[in-house]
Amino acid sequence: MSPEEFRRHGHQLIDRIADYHANVAQQPVMARVQPGDLLKALPDQAPQTGEAFADVLGDVDRLIMPGLSHWQHPNFYGYFPSNASLPSILGDFLSTGLGVLGLSWQSSPALSELEEKTVDWVRKMVGLSDNWSGVIQDTASTSTLVALICARERTTEYGLASGGLQAQGKPLVIYVSEYAHSSVDKAALLAGFGKDNIRHITCDDSLAMDPIALQAAIEQDLAAGLVPCAIAATVGTTTTTAVDPLTPVGAIARRFNLWLHVDSAMAGSAMILPECRWMWAGIEQADSIVVNAHKWLGVAFDCSLYFVKDSQHLIRVMSTNPSYLQTSVDSEVKNLRDWGIPLGRRFRALKLWFLLRSEGVEGLQQRLRRDLANAQWLKEQIEQAGDWKVLAPVNLQTLCIRHEPAGLAGEELDAYTQAWVNRLNQSGVVYVTPATLQGRWMVRVSIGALTTEREHVAALWAHLQQVVAA
Amino acid sequence: MSPEEFRRHGHQLIDRIADYHANVAQQPVMARVQPGDLLKALPDQAPQTGEAFADVLGDVDRLIMPGLSHWQHPNFYGYFPSNASLPSILGDFLSTGLGVLGLSWQSSPALSELEEKTVDWVRKMVGLSDNWSGVIQDTASTSTLVALICARERTTEYGLASGGLQAQGKPLVIYVSEYAHSSVDKAALLAGFGKDNIRHITCDDSLAMDPIALQAAIEQDLAAGLVPCAIAATVGTTTTTAVDPLTPVGAIARRFNLWLHVDSAMAGSAMILPECRWMWAGIEQADSIVVNAHKWLGVAFDCSLYFVKDSQHLIRVMSTNPSYLQTSVDSEVKNLRDWGIPLGRRFRALKLWFLLRSEGVEGLQQRLRRDLANAQWLKEQIEQAGDWKVLAPVNLQTLCIRHEPAGLAGEELDAYTQAWVNRLNQSGVVYVTPATLQGRWMVRVSIGALTTEREHVAALWAHLQQVVAA
Ligand SMILES: Cc1ncc(COP(=O)(O)O)c(C=O)c1O
Ligand SMILES: Cc1ncc(COP(=O)(O)O)c(C=O)c1O
Repeated sequence: MSPEEFRRHGHQLIDRIADYHANVAQQPVMARVQPGDLLKALPDQAPQTGEAFADVLGDVDRLIMPGLSHWQHPNFYGYFPSNASLPSILGDFLSTGLGVLGLSWQSSPALSELEEKTVDWVRKMVGLSDNWSGVIQDTASTSTLVALICARERTTEYGLASGGLQAQGKPLVIYVSEYAHSSVDKAALLAGFGKDNIRHITCDDSLAMDPIALQAAIEQDLAAGLVPCAIAATVGTTTTTAVDPLTPVGAIARRFNLWLHVDSAMAGSAMILPECRWMWAGIEQADSIVVNAHKWLGVAFDCSLYFVKDSQHLIRVMSTNPSYLQTSVDSEVKNLRDWGIPLGRRFRALKLWFLLRSEGVEGLQQRLRRDLANAQWLKEQIEQAGDWKVLAPVNLQTLCIRHEPAGLAGEELDAYTQAWVNRLNQSGVVYVTPATLQGRWMVRVSIGALTTEREHVAALWAHLQQVVAA
Repeated sequence: MSPEEFRRHGHQLIDRIADYHANVAQQPVMARVQPGDLLKALPDQAPQTGEAFADVLGDVDRLIMPGLSHWQHPNFYGYFPSNASLPSILGDFLSTGLGVLGLSWQSSPALSELEEKTVDWVRKMVGLSDNWSGVIQDTASTSTLVALICARERTTEYGLASGGLQAQGKPLVIYVSEYAHSSVDKAALLAGFGKDNIRHITCDDSLAMDPIALQAAIEQDLAAGLVPCAIAATVGTTTTTAVDPLTPVGAIARRFNLWLHVDSAMAGSAMILPECRWMWAGIEQADSIVVNAHKWLGVAFDCSLYFVKDSQHLIRVMSTNPSYLQTSVDSEVKNLRDWGIPLGRRFRALKLWFLLRSEGVEGLQQRLRRDLANAQWLKEQIEQAGDWKVLAPVNLQTLCIRHEPAGLAGEELDAYTQAWVNRLNQSGVVYVTPATLQGRWMVRVSIGALTTEREHVAALWAHLQQVVAA
């Protein structure tokens, strides 16, 4: 493909993507295909000779589009929002189009420096002191893995430089709340701690980590001769957006000299709003924080911001310096390969920069406030309706709800809930994702797609009432 | 930004990217900026209110472009090529533009199924049997980390489900060649093995792992009561593209029941050429393989293909199944979050699909053969010239060379080599990256950017001769 053909096809593609965003609301939100449909429709071999671009685009329409669940749909209320704002999409296009890599500063200086600067802009926007430095990782899962490895290395005084975790006499222990995201457990397992050494601390009525239970668990482990290593607290849990209390949790971390990692993958975006900062009270006591700019904030996936207090420690854990990666300016620059796991790095800062410049802080604040207000509005409707319950505090834009007709409880209620959620999702009009809360199924409604306005939320409420009446 | 504004700005951006590719050859290859130039030029805060897109684009020209080292430049001979082919760029645009996520099959069925199918196409193209299944990871670094964690869990019989690596009585040991990529050591360190438990096996004259030394090291560790766990062999080392001999290495892995991971990050692409398959003789004995489709093959970064024999084992190590990620079809589908570390996943298969369909297998083969021929041509020129040496077998498209004027040796020769490389890179006409080989600096010339033709390689040879004459 020549640059001129690229230009022509690129224009066609831009039109399609613009049309997609303009018209996505007309699609069923959840894909209606069956497992294997696409596998069966595709040939078993790559083509021997090149095909016309028009044929590829035709297959996109015919084969790919029907197989999408539309995350950018105004009626998408599943998981947490993963907003691909239009300016950030353009920033990502530029990144892919330039095709430069940031494995060292020299390999593309602007990539490293724009990342340093834009992440620092976000640091200020979310109210973190200048004791923090940040870097872009792909996901919160990876960021948390990096955090727990760094915790491990601090506690073992760089065990990696000698016998690793294998030389550790007494087992290191990780503390998380029972509502921590699965990626935290996964990170602890991948980092080698072992399931036996992960404590799931019980939660209080607000579904947040109970600091008294946390301290008791640490003391019990100490008494048993184990080595408490890290606490992973969550601000904005996936199930309910509950807030682990960082002030007492941080005090415990300091008292016992534990690493404190804060998973704010979702709620971190809300820290650009002064009225939400209470959720982060005590954050300065943490050692590492993750904020997914690719969720509510609107940077096209993937863009997970990882902040650390001690960047020298991070670099010491992550750095490699083979001759083929050395450059003459290494002593004067940051080489971002030493800030995470992958060597090769995309120019991810462009999509963050394009978003921040196009929307401005106020534009982002306004949108998030719209979503918070929509969530409160829906909460009021549901609380006033018969048989419906809001099951957890609505700290942000996610509601945990259940329809509880008289006489239904326990597993019967579970079956009832799952049945209507499936009906609702299969109808294609909206998409919500269920989860269990205190052992029972309920429905999460996560508001905050870019195009979701009050009218959509009102329509959602009507659909909810209809689907249970059906 | 409305879809209509996106359309307008998107067209502008496409034109810029098309122009960039059409004209990149006129730029100095390596950025000429100084550390801190961009940091100083950018404001210290994100803007309060949104700015016009034209201003953002203006700053791209003014601030970003001068800070790029151009990986897509025909005179880029650094590291290994990281080719962003134009069709794959369009595929990535579609991925970002659609903004769908693949955390479960249901969350976008086409994302999972296109990935399964296209990776399987590549499996066939590189001649792997149908005992393999593949998935897309971001980088080889991550793929190798996944591999070593899977090795760890096989040897410990899923130690992660109990005491982890901490409960391991006798230390597990990893074997790599002294020329393994730094990401292999990094992966072993991050996975908790510890530096003391990584053996760097010496290489033979071809700079490949010596199987006799490998077997001796394993036997010595066994005698010392340690537990040999995995061998990470490299096909196509970063320094010289040397080939660890998989047939004897694989036999040793089987004999001692070790995991065999093959890092073919670079050379894997060449396996689409029958004449290069000798490099992979014995590959079927491996347990895991990484092939970076984002290098020579031409898929825009990031797209690292990770193949495993036992996908059930991978899933068992990586899977998490919290209620909020469960769907009604889970028992019938692959949920790709269980095939790697991150939960959220981009629609990366689109860029691979667009490339394979646009170029066809033959188109890709032709391009790779062009590069191989260019490397042989350059090798002949250098071998015929006085004072120049080709220091390692030219197995693929990378040459390791040195200019050795009479009377220069040791550190004097190192200083001389580094001086002319810096002069050459700073001239902006070409970009090469040096490395050490057997303790001495030399220059790697890695041919294979998409637009590099014979005339560019001939010009490179002229520049090399000029720069040492200067
Ligand atoms: C609290 C929390 N942590 C972590 C994650 C994982 O995010 P990622 O896909 O970036 O790994 C999520 C995803 O929803 C989350 O809600
Ligand atoms: C042999 C080898 N392995 C691994 C890597 C790391 O690649 P990535 O940036 O995908 O982690 C490289 C990069 O050049 C390589 O040459």
